[in-house]
Amino acid sequence: MDDNRRVTIAVIAREAGVSVPTVSRVINGRSDVSPQTRERVEEVLNRHGYQRRPTAVRSTSGLIDLVFNDLDSPWAVEIIRGVEDVAHAADVGTVVSAIHRKTSSAKQWLNNMRARTTEGVIFVTSVLEPPLQAELRRLNIPVVIVDPAGLPTQGAPTIGAANWTGSLRATEYLIGLGHRRIGFIAGPAQLLCSRARLDGYRAALEAAGLPIDDDLIRPGNFYHEAGFTSGNDLLDLPDPPTAIFASSDQMALGVYESIRRRGLRVADDVSVVGFDDLPEVRWSSPPLTTVRQPLAEMGLLAARTVLRLARREKIESPRVELATELVVRDSTAPPPGTARSSTAPAAGTTSGGHL
Amino acid sequence: MDDNRRVTIAVIAREAGVSVPTVSRVINGRSDVSPQTRERVEEVLNRHGYQRRPTAVRSTSGLIDLVFNDLDSPWAVEIIRGVEDVAHAADVGTVVSAIHRKTSSAKQWLNNMRARTTEGVIFVTSVLEPPLQAELRRLNIPVVIVDPAGLPTQGAPTIGAANWTGSLRATEYLIGLGHRRIGFIAGPAQLLCSRARLDGYRAALEAAGLPIDDDLIRPGNFYHEAGFTSGNDLLDLPDPPTAIFASSDQMALGVYESIRRRGLRVADDVSVVGFDDLPEVRWSSPPLTTVRQPLAEMGLLAARTVLRLARREKIESPRVELATELVVRDSTAPPPGTARSSTAPAAGTTSGGHL
Repeated sequence: MDDNRRVTIAVIAREAGVSVPTVSRVINGRSDVSPQTRERVEEVLNRHGYQRRPTAVRSTSGLIDLVFNDLDSPWAVEIIRGVEDVAHAADVGTVVSAIHRKTSSAKQWLNNMRARTTEGVIFVTSVLEPPLQAELRRLNIPVVIVDPAGLPTQGAPTIGAANWTGSLRATEYLIGLGHRRIGFIAGPAQLLCSRARLDGYRAALEAAGLPIDDDLIRPGNFYHEAGFTSGNDLLDLPDPPTAIFASSDQMALGVYESIRRRGLRVADDVSVVGFDDLPEVRWSSPPLTTVRQPLAEMGLLAARTVLRLARREKIESPRVELATELVVRDSTAPPPGTARSSTAPAAGTTSGGHL
Repeated sequence: MDDNRRVTIAVIAREAGVSVPTVSRVINGRSDVSPQTRERVEEVLNRHGYQRRPTAVRSTSGLIDLVFNDLDSPWAVEIIRGVEDVAHAADVGTVVSAIHRKTSSAKQWLNNMRARTTEGVIFVTSVLEPPLQAELRRLNIPVVIVDPAGLPTQGAPTIGAANWTGSLRATEYLIGLGHRRIGFIAGPAQLLCSRARLDGYRAALEAAGLPIDDDLIRPGNFYHEAGFTSGNDLLDLPDPPTAIFASSDQMALGVYESIRRRGLRVADDVSVVGFDDLPEVRWSSPPLTTVRQPLAEMGLLAARTVLRLARREKIESPRVELATELVVRDSTAPPPGTARSSTAPAAGTTSGGHL
């Protein structure tokens, strides 16, 4: 496509059967063009892989876009805070949108964004549909993806966390406490980060010479309810686990509730580990041992990256993984019937952040 | 001021010692004016109370602004979700900003907003400084305030929750369970909503003929740590309360931790009630009894109101309080040593949402 970028507006106008100013209006995202005409012109622009000159379109928008699928998780506010910090300091406004995994909603966002223009777009765990992706590329708008969902990103820089390493460390920690049957509650199967966390869990078991029991691996979707349901299933097993590693904090709190409703105690009876380190889990009862994902830092870095791309600077690394860190609190203990002090692992193994 | 709105641009230009086009550029928020000139012209505009014609400035911004003091609470995402839902459906982008209670930061936001223009601004629990407020009024930009902090709002519509009634109901419910010593942890003293919650607590005690013991009323700031600290202080009293009403969910979870660390049990030993109904407290251990504040609905209504103001529609009620509702879960029970079934209040008193 890139080799065609020198096609002139006159050629586009002729092929689309419209005037040159009309093509300009479409290219500049102005609203005084009929939808039919816009579509026809864009089809021709698209066919030629026409690249808008960046300065013509976006020099003064003073905005970046931050696009979520849904705004229904407390971790969203962590990422918003990180992005807004950087954008505010750079005198840029942050437009926050949710597209609910719906093509119609994504299209509406795209139209709004095109009318006002943007310096660049940050997508958060979005399954970025290829047509949307192609359109943004055609508009020459920088895109950065936070925590990619596994679709090919076609060159957009991605910012994630070291999911595999974090999961490995957490499982190693539980093994070090003396646990031999460790349950795992997975994230949505279609997300790469879910897969990485499951693989890290498996790798730690294998490295310790422990068997991988498929009964101990349960499905989840990162929300509380799934932690509660899969926690119940695990505790109902004839030979239940002595520790449960939930691959999100919300699911870990759901596991807390399944433990509590049986009259059991977290840590004393069943150890629980989460993943995320949301602010509130410091205050769960008991405070949750979890793998810290640097969500605000991921937002900061995404905003810095998209602003650099907007200034046409070069990005060194198109794929960044920020370190995760095991934060040990009160939800983990040696299995019941074990002497605590003798089996506690050395302090050095509790932090994976330095690896 | 309004009677002066017919002052002409020519008069402004003459008084400011600049050309008419320069005044137009300032009025239209264009960036090609020196800061000194802009300031001089705006000072004259201000003095005359000049009202910009709305259509000249903002007809196509396609944006509304949602301004927080800080993006550090899970309830922020609830409000963002409500606002974004309405804005997205109206084909309007939502610019989310945090101004950190700093004049410099507010000024930076104002400059960014002025350069790109906006349909209207929603402030969330902001102490809206009079100069900022005056500037927005002068720019003729609609303003809506969510959960006002107590400063005079000079005519901007406000959207809050029925704090006093919610607090009254929660306290009545605890009294109905048989509690006679009920601790209260307050919000920041400078916020009106804190005062309303404290007054509702006091009103319920007085209505029931119970004494108000100042030892049972402790300071807080809505964050976890304050709940933990004031919870500890209450439980350290020679005659500790059998129930604690924390005026935010985060503080209630801090109280949970102060109870747990003493080896006591929530509900069985000490009842706890919160305020907010954040999504995660359904999954706290035990699930929290709390006063539901309709945060997402407050965001929805704020967005609808600001968009109506942007279309120059009339607003019927400049001050709306959405109903709060007591949601009874597992953190409340009759005081220790009481027979549960005989003292439980009738179901009808558990919901304040219909009042």
